[in-house]
Amino acid sequence: MLQSKLFTKTLKDAPKDEVSLNAVLLTRAGFIDKLAAGVYTYLPLGLRALDKIKGIIREEMNCLGGQEIYMPALCPKENWLITGRWDKMDVLFKLKGAGDKDFALGSTHEEVVTPLVKKFASSYKDLPCAVYQIQDKFRNEPRAKSGLLRGREFSMKDLYSFHADEKDFEEFYEKAKAAYLKIFKRCGLEAIITEASGGSFSKYSHEFQVLTEFGEDLIYYCDNCFYAQNKEIAEHKEGDTCPKCKKGKIKAGKAIEVGNIFPLKTKFSEAFDYKYIDEKGKPQPVLMGCYGIGPSRVLGAIVEIFHDDKGICWPEAVAPFKVHLLCLGKEEAVVKQAKKVYDELLKNNIEVLYDDRLEATAGQKFADADLIGLPCRLVVSGKTGEKVEFKKRTEEKAELVAMEKLVNSLR
Amino acid sequence: MLQSKLFTKTLKDAPKDEVSLNAVLLTRAGFIDKLAAGVYTYLPLGLRALDKIKGIIREEMNCLGGQEIYMPALCPKENWLITGRWDKMDVLFKLKGAGDKDFALGSTHEEVVTPLVKKFASSYKDLPCAVYQIQDKFRNEPRAKSGLLRGREFSMKDLYSFHADEKDFEEFYEKAKAAYLKIFKRCGLEAIITEASGGSFSKYSHEFQVLTEFGEDLIYYCDNCFYAQNKEIAEHKEGDTCPKCKKGKIKAGKAIEVGNIFPLKTKFSEAFDYKYIDEKGKPQPVLMGCYGIGPSRVLGAIVEIFHDDKGICWPEAVAPFKVHLLCLGKEEAVVKQAKKVYDELLKNNIEVLYDDRLEATAGQKFADADLIGLPCRLVVSGKTGEKVEFKKRTEEKAELVAMEKLVNSLR
Repeated sequence: MLQSKLFTKTLKDAPKDEVSLNAVLLTRAGFIDKLAAGVYTYLPLGLRALDKIKGIIREEMNCLGGQEIYMPALCPKENWLITGRWDKMDVLFKLKGAGDKDFALGSTHEEVVTPLVKKFASSYKDLPCAVYQIQDKFRNEPRAKSGLLRGREFSMKDLYSFHADEKDFEEFYEKAKAAYLKIFKRCGLEAIITEASGGSFSKYSHEFQVLTEFGEDLIYYCDNCFYAQNKEIAEHKEGDTCPKCKKGKIKAGKAIEVGNIFPLKTKFSEAFDYKYIDEKGKPQPVLMGCYGIGPSRVLGAIVEIFHDDKGICWPEAVAPFKVHLLCLGKEEAVVKQAKKVYDELLKNNIEVLYDDRLEATAGQKFADADLIGLPCRLVVSGKTGEKVEFKKRTEEKAELVAMEKLVNSLR
Repeated sequence: MLQSKLFTKTLKDAPKDEVSLNAVLLTRAGFIDKLAAGVYTYLPLGLRALDKIKGIIREEMNCLGGQEIYMPALCPKENWLITGRWDKMDVLFKLKGAGDKDFALGSTHEEVVTPLVKKFASSYKDLPCAVYQIQDKFRNEPRAKSGLLRGREFSMKDLYSFHADEKDFEEFYEKAKAAYLKIFKRCGLEAIITEASGGSFSKYSHEFQVLTEFGEDLIYYCDNCFYAQNKEIAEHKEGDTCPKCKKGKIKAGKAIEVGNIFPLKTKFSEAFDYKYIDEKGKPQPVLMGCYGIGPSRVLGAIVEIFHDDKGICWPEAVAPFKVHLLCLGKEEAVVKQAKKVYDELLKNNIEVLYDDRLEATAGQKFADADLIGLPCRLVVSGKTGEKVEFKKRTEEKAELVAMEKLVNSLR
């Protein structure tokens, strides 16, 4: 893409009303724009990064056998009354529609997915079954100061699984755990599976926490085997010997939660009287699990973790483009050479943002490249000749590389 | 995809609470599920078809130079007060957030996009500029009985363009018209550009209408050059000579509106005091256009137009899968041959729904294939041997085809 055509621009100064690092950097770099507290527009660069994260999640959900569906944001009050959450969930946005009908904006979709799957999967032959959604959800957060980490309107992937028995549920739950670790790894994040409260139906649920000094959460984890519990349920204190591996020491660390999975068991199937018919013709309770990742939260977490004082440092798999190509100089030969490099990259399906702006100075272009933070920076100037200057965003060293070699290494 | 794994099932009977043809067929075929009047869940088949339509639209918007962004559903009251639409638009869903802040759910996004683009595109050098969004919108329709044709929550693509002068605007408007015709053609629809009221800022806006006996709208069109006006503004009656080509006769026809484009001119830029700085340093009014297509409405329209008494007949480009492969018989040789065909299709990247269900009868499988309506039906049975029976959904004639020839023709 030509940067001269990009309608957004980077901002020198931090927006006055943002305190969170992710919102400050993403706003300055032209990825998002704040419409209200916790409510953001995704600009072209931000939407590309968000779509990359969604794409990774979608692939792993499909591998897990999940079937993608898309549920409404407008969820009727009746469904929430059945589970008792109309009054219990204080973050529900409530509204009235024509005919005085009450809705809540979906903050989670157990109230929709349970009666939906009940309509179709009524026999033991129909189970297990797993459906997922990647779409926006809404939470009327009293405070929304954490940028994309705690939005009032946010992107969410939720997977819901339905099982005939405990063993089948447990097996799937473990597979989902593994899929989650893979998703985070692909996004450049090392997540630690952290035990959390299981509510009234299970001993534990599990959070996926990424250690970072910028984290809002506190977890206690083993420095050897990474067994971990969150602050709310931690049974061990710093310095204790790990109860699992008996080798490591328990440490406390700040972390950001990037996903969580819950054994819902029969909590929602009971509420909606969802039973399946077993081999003997008898009705049996359906067991459920739910598995959440917020793509917009992951986007925010990545920025909190991967940045320096000049800007964002995107992991390659989620960067809006892989390459930022800068043309320094207005001389015909330089412009021509830069265009040649751009065309060559496109021809090889390498995603590239081409800073072809004629009026920006070299200093502005370098500053923008650091702020936007694409993984590879290429420079064409009066000094680079037939070659191209290549530098990784996270390294200091730049080198002159021949085009062919460059394409091979980027491809 | 294996049909035995698909969690949805077809329904023999029409849902009792649906009167529209599109909702009846899409529900029976397992594409959508109604959650409330005008509010639907997209099931795996429905989501695939919807995504195909969105994909076609996205490609053509990108060709037009549009930059994709994603705006919030939660739109603050302040923005609507500026344009006066908080009180004037009676279909706005209104709600309160934390701190008693008022929002409307976006039913259209001029109130968000105008101040957004104003932040970045302030000079003549930044214009023209075109941004688009593909996302859900909300309208609190008093009656919502038309299935996907008039939803309370629906998928929408809106493109907004910004221009320095009338000539540039007009040129882009004509290009957008052409892009729209191309989109509908790719979706299998022949749309007629129909003049409609231009509101207070232009003589005309333009609707894209598809003739069909099932249409809710009435248009007057020339049977030779297809010049057309909608009922509200029609200046000619049936039987008149066409005022444009002077050859054809004006006819009246029922039609479904699948898109519309508006010359907004300065309506919203004035409201948000959005001016650009021209070459001489003087502020000048920005001219705007807006261009809408509802992917979910297009999905509904396609079903209204392409169906027979057995079910849907999807145009190939928007079908959830290209091929429906039916295995008739439980004998090992038949099952093995069907699996071989399935693998061969997958290997050749041909999208296929494979009815591998062991318990469904041949009659059920044929009925499901007709109801779901994929463009090509393949049958493997005890009679087909090494070959495969091929039939188009819209034709009666089936023929036995060798696998290699089949793959070549499907690819």
